[in-house]
Formats: sequence, C-alpha cells, structure tokens
Amino acid sequence: MKPKISIITLGVTNFPRSFDFYSKGLGFIPHNYKTGDVYALFEMDGSWFSIFPIDMMSEDAGIKRTVSPSPSFTLAHNVSSEAMVDEVFGQGLKAGAKLIKTPQKAAWGGYSGYFADPDGYLWEVAYNPFTDLT
Amino acid sequence: MKPKISIITLGVTNFPRSFDFYSKGLGFIPHNYKTGDVYALFEMDGSWFSIFPIDMMSEDAGIKRTVSPSPSFTLAHNVSSEAMVDEVFGQGLKAGAKLIKTPQKAAWGGYSGYFADPDGYLWEVAYNPFTDLT
Repeated sequence: MKPKISIITLGVTNFPRSFDFYSKGLGFIPHNYKTGDVYALFEMDGSWFSIFPIDMMSEDAGIKRTVSPSPSFTLAHNVSSEAMVDEVFGQGLKAGAKLIKTPQKAAWGGYSGYFADPDGYLWEVAYNPFTDLT
Repeated sequence: MKPKISIITLGVTNFPRSFDFYSKGLGFIPHNYKTGDVYALFEMDGSWFSIFPIDMMSEDAGIKRTVSPSPSFTLAHNVSSEAMVDEVFGQGLKAGAKLIKTPQKAAWGGYSGYFADPDGYLWEVAYNPFTDLT
C-alpha cells in the first residue's frame, strides 16, 4: 500500500450549507461540480477533499453513520508564519466557522488555533517552525 | 486560504495498537518518531497523516472528544485497477483491519471496498476510472 490518502470525505448534515462554506467561504474549488449534485470534490494541493450527505455515506459503506458532537479528528492547514495563522483564521470566522480556540502559542512549540465547520468538524490553522507542510 | 490539508490527525484510544497498525500493518513511514512518543506523524504523498491519543487531542483544542462508533468521514486510498483494490484491501485485513464492505462494483461507476482501523475509522480502497487520484 502506497502511503497516500487520495481523498478525505466528510459526512455533512446540510449539503448546501457546507458547500457554500467550503466553496464561497474558504475558497476551495469544486471539481466537475454541477448544480444539484449532492457530492462535491474539491481540488486541493495534496490530498483532495470532499463532502457528501451523511445519510448517503451510510448507505455506501452499509453502516450507520452520524455526526458526533465531539469530533475525533482534525484537519490541519499549515501556513508559514504566525501572522498568516491569524489571517487564515480570520477568513474562517468570516466564512461562518465557529471559534473553538483563538490562535496562540502551542505547547508543542508552534502557534495555532481551531475553528469548526458548520457540522462541527475541526480545522486547525497552524504555524509549525519545525516541519514545513505548507 | 490555500486549498490544502496539511495533516489529517485521528484521535486514537490505544496509541501503540494504532501505531503498529499503520506502521507495521500498512507500511506508513513515521517522521522523526522516537520510541515512547505519543504522537506519530507519517510521511505521505499528498496530505500527511498522524495519530494522537484522543484525550490529548481534547486538551489541545479545549473541547471534549470521543471516538464515535459511527464514523462520519472516510479516508480514501485510490489505486489504478480493480485488482489493486483487492490487493491493498487484502493487506489491510492482514494488518488486522475489520472488514466493512468487500470490494465490489460501486453505484458511482468505480470499484471499492471499506475496512476499519482499530478505532473503527473507515478507509475506502477504490478504483475510480474517471478521476485519477492515485
């Protein structure tokens, strides 16, 4: 198995709301999206990102899925300075994200904050002075 | 905001078990990992991948997090043929993954199966004849 995640797909409860958040709010570019589609794949640097109604995700894997109020994973968006963390974080809030943790010095030596998307999925915006994944 | 996910981090309930699953079982390569570390970052093509004890994730964001028995997101690993889906899927099961859906023709025109990691996180192994994300 090649070490690669091709796509990260989030199950969402209100597709139009999430589509607007990611496309208009954060500026992600949909790939081959047509109005009325209920699956959106966003072209990204690195692994691609997609959203899909959670009920349809359940059907596809054949198991029940629900959005947990206590998300157990994080999507990190790394940038190259503390000032850029603040800038991107502000863009997230302006797009309607919920503030979870204001950007600040982190115990691990970097600088980061968290916001949540419309379903509560967590994004960490981070500056990591040790490993450049921007 | 640049369209990029730098790292996908999963909160895990038994770190050594998950570390073995991803490093020994699936063959992912840890980055600067030292024995005893309780955070592992894996070098990947595309977005990197990491695991972190869920209790420590909760502290970092300042909100409670729990692993849901009904995972609301999927990590897809795409390969270039149906035969490769079967091969990689077999590797996952051999690594101790739980079988969720045997690889089969999918409604969207591809071929895919699902297995779950030790915490129940879902990996889809897929062949997509329309969009090459391998």
